[in-house]
Amino acid sequence: MFPSKVVRRSMSALTKDTINPRIVQAEYAVRGPLVLKSIELTKRLAKGEKLPFDKIIPCNIGNPQSLGQAPIQFHREVLALVNVPGLIEHPSASQIFKPDAIARAKHYLNKIPGGTGAYGHSKGVEVIREEVAQFIYERDGYKADPENIYLTDGASQAVQSILLACIRDENDAILVPIPQYPLYSAAIAINGGTLSGYYLDEKTGWSMSIPELKRTISDARAKGKTPRALVVINPGNPTGQTLGEDNMRDIVNFCKEENLLLMADEVYQENVYVEGKHFTSFKKIVSEMGSDVELASFHSTSKGFTGECGRRGGYMELVNFAPDVLEEIYKLVSINLCSNIEGQLMVALMTNPPKPGDASYDLYVQQRDGIVSSLKRRAVKLVAAYNELEGVTCNATEGAMYTFPKITIPAKAVAEAKKHGLAPDAFYAHELLNATGIVVVPGSGFGQEDGTFHFRSTILPPEDAIDEVISKTAKFHADFMNKYR
Amino acid sequence: MFPSKVVRRSMSALTKDTINPRIVQAEYAVRGPLVLKSIELTKRLAKGEKLPFDKIIPCNIGNPQSLGQAPIQFHREVLALVNVPGLIEHPSASQIFKPDAIARAKHYLNKIPGGTGAYGHSKGVEVIREEVAQFIYERDGYKADPENIYLTDGASQAVQSILLACIRDENDAILVPIPQYPLYSAAIAINGGTLSGYYLDEKTGWSMSIPELKRTISDARAKGKTPRALVVINPGNPTGQTLGEDNMRDIVNFCKEENLLLMADEVYQENVYVEGKHFTSFKKIVSEMGSDVELASFHSTSKGFTGECGRRGGYMELVNFAPDVLEEIYKLVSINLCSNIEGQLMVALMTNPPKPGDASYDLYVQQRDGIVSSLKRRAVKLVAAYNELEGVTCNATEGAMYTFPKITIPAKAVAEAKKHGLAPDAFYAHELLNATGIVVVPGSGFGQEDGTFHFRSTILPPEDAIDEVISKTAKFHADFMNKYR
Repeated sequence: MFPSKVVRRSMSALTKDTINPRIVQAEYAVRGPLVLKSIELTKRLAKGEKLPFDKIIPCNIGNPQSLGQAPIQFHREVLALVNVPGLIEHPSASQIFKPDAIARAKHYLNKIPGGTGAYGHSKGVEVIREEVAQFIYERDGYKADPENIYLTDGASQAVQSILLACIRDENDAILVPIPQYPLYSAAIAINGGTLSGYYLDEKTGWSMSIPELKRTISDARAKGKTPRALVVINPGNPTGQTLGEDNMRDIVNFCKEENLLLMADEVYQENVYVEGKHFTSFKKIVSEMGSDVELASFHSTSKGFTGECGRRGGYMELVNFAPDVLEEIYKLVSINLCSNIEGQLMVALMTNPPKPGDASYDLYVQQRDGIVSSLKRRAVKLVAAYNELEGVTCNATEGAMYTFPKITIPAKAVAEAKKHGLAPDAFYAHELLNATGIVVVPGSGFGQEDGTFHFRSTILPPEDAIDEVISKTAKFHADFMNKYR
Repeated sequence: MFPSKVVRRSMSALTKDTINPRIVQAEYAVRGPLVLKSIELTKRLAKGEKLPFDKIIPCNIGNPQSLGQAPIQFHREVLALVNVPGLIEHPSASQIFKPDAIARAKHYLNKIPGGTGAYGHSKGVEVIREEVAQFIYERDGYKADPENIYLTDGASQAVQSILLACIRDENDAILVPIPQYPLYSAAIAINGGTLSGYYLDEKTGWSMSIPELKRTISDARAKGKTPRALVVINPGNPTGQTLGEDNMRDIVNFCKEENLLLMADEVYQENVYVEGKHFTSFKKIVSEMGSDVELASFHSTSKGFTGECGRRGGYMELVNFAPDVLEEIYKLVSINLCSNIEGQLMVALMTNPPKPGDASYDLYVQQRDGIVSSLKRRAVKLVAAYNELEGVTCNATEGAMYTFPKITIPAKAVAEAKKHGLAPDAFYAHELLNATGIVVVPGSGFGQEDGTFHFRSTILPPEDAIDEVISKTAKFHADFMNKYR
């Protein structure tokens, strides 16, 4: 609205050559050039420009409410009630809000010192950490200590805090799955550490194997690196696989033998779609085994059926950490004072939803089951459709919110990509965007076996739009293959 | 509620010896041991234990709503209305919410893609950045580009992003006022850089002098450091002084000559209390001068009369930055996806409040003026009271939310502090807490001239509690001086 002219001067205090080089090295494909291009295209469409499509379909990011998923009504009612002074007592409140929402809001107003507008404890509001601990106990059957729970601005911030704690310099290595969620590669780069990638096996449904972990850690040590932590994303992002308990026990034993901190990214724990598979937390496995492996487990309000991404709510539970290390982590998080209190409240609501008999319970169940079963239908439909395409194979989405099809890119297209300075799958994704308005993230943004190409697409477009995504992708793919064959 | 036993093992993956040493080195006094002690005392009081006081009075942190300051009603109504699906159309809504709040909520619901539950643009929601740009334009008379505005989880996160960009290693120095707000020292330590402190002159009301800046930068260069940025906190924290425009022009010229990025912490811009003083932004000064100095200016919803600390809302405006540097900063902030949308909305509401004629305007003005004039009365009262105490002198609080009295600590008390491994003013603050329940932050947490001692107390206790703070502090101080004289 106010275009300001860009003033350059002979000498700048901060240039691309003098900025912290770790920022320049970091890559974050989920919000990369394709997304900026899609924002530009959105604006051009809004101005009435004719393009080969009439809207952008963002399949690049797990952002359910941007694609029309409704928020859980109970959660939002409680937020409103705690935020407006006097609203709980207002005579009209009962005409708008359910009685259990009013009761819950009273509970938080009594227990949150200063309300949502005050800084809270740096670990998070105490009553909310207690509710999270209760949730973990009910989920796993093992107690959790609220003092070991840290409420954070989304899981991303929690992951970054632990990586910051683990990485002293470039000699510290973090074991990360390939393909991975690029938060890990970006945060490791920003912290100046080394990423040691272990490969998930696409042929066996993206399984995680101990021999591959051993190969990776030996390789890191041979390069003079000190492995500090193992990252496991379960259910997988972008790969969607769900770990079995035997596998998880082996992973815990591996961490014990190799003296690694286990970072368990469990933000998709409510997103499991395949019959006979279920989510088990690493906290449960570690507890069952009586293991003393140090575990940081991450959860978020952004995923599951809550889908409250904009809230930036999340938590981490730190298990078996040394007390003096916990003190240091407390100090680290206290520099940001506290995470946002409404995000914390959303964590409370996610972990302590309406119970049977509560006025909001039926609607809650209807929303929850509606979202999860619809995500399942969409996952099945998308995966089947990708497997129909020439040269494409796609593992089932057991969990999480993504498909990660493997695509064959003809040599002529690889050469064309090179001309544009793009990875072949980035070129494919750009072409897909330009032809259809569909935004996906190229596999090169997540890492993949050399010579293979993929893209990640969310399963989040509404069910009636999934058919459109499928038909547009199919037409584009056929044209692309024909053009570059 | 579930005390878990702490399991230690022979070998831990993360110990105080193997954690990132920059975390161990960092200090953050605002949330340090005194605050932990006060939390413990609060719990003991709640359990009915008899202590020399019946409540904790937290004067350690600028957290107005924790001390009873009411939120601006309009802001909270808008938050509620955007958060509950269907609330705007509900027939009872008009009985509860003001029409301008309803209209404003409609505006945001139309303009925020996916609502408050969706991730937004990594720089922040576009319509909010436009409102911030309009606010800056109206404040300064110079245009602002929404593309140069980044909405952040509080100003703390913004400051940390810019420090991360400036600091490559320990050879990069950041010029920081002494006394300073310890976010700066902590974040510089975490990023592995060097803090070069320039002293504010207590005798002349904490004035900032160019010769002292020159001394500091020469000193840094003599030590082989590369000065990268100058931090200015205006109005000052903890010192409360408000810069004059001549001084500000000299500071901009200094940055130009020395090729420094100017970091302007302007979160207290609404908190100026002294007749004849007013806040001027560095953006205005830089624009008036036609300067090409790179300026990062920080603002927050936590301070002023908004006081919405728990919201973690803030923004930074980046002026005269090179386009390729802005791209790198965009990438850096995108790794966190986006700041929390409700915090962003609070920035929008703070910068675009009700206008004359709006239904909420009168109440808004009443709340705003009530808060600011009360803060002024409290500042004057506290400063006068401190100046009555033996060996204490205290500059007027021209702005911000703090007093920073200089105290004389008798040699016997210094010796006693040493026995406890405490800085003398930390010892004083611990004794004050134990005797009165009042929490302040020792001057050593902010930095001070060698051999001087201070503490920082907020001016935030409600007016009727200020007298209690004053009488309890006076009695404690007299006892302390008598005991250690």
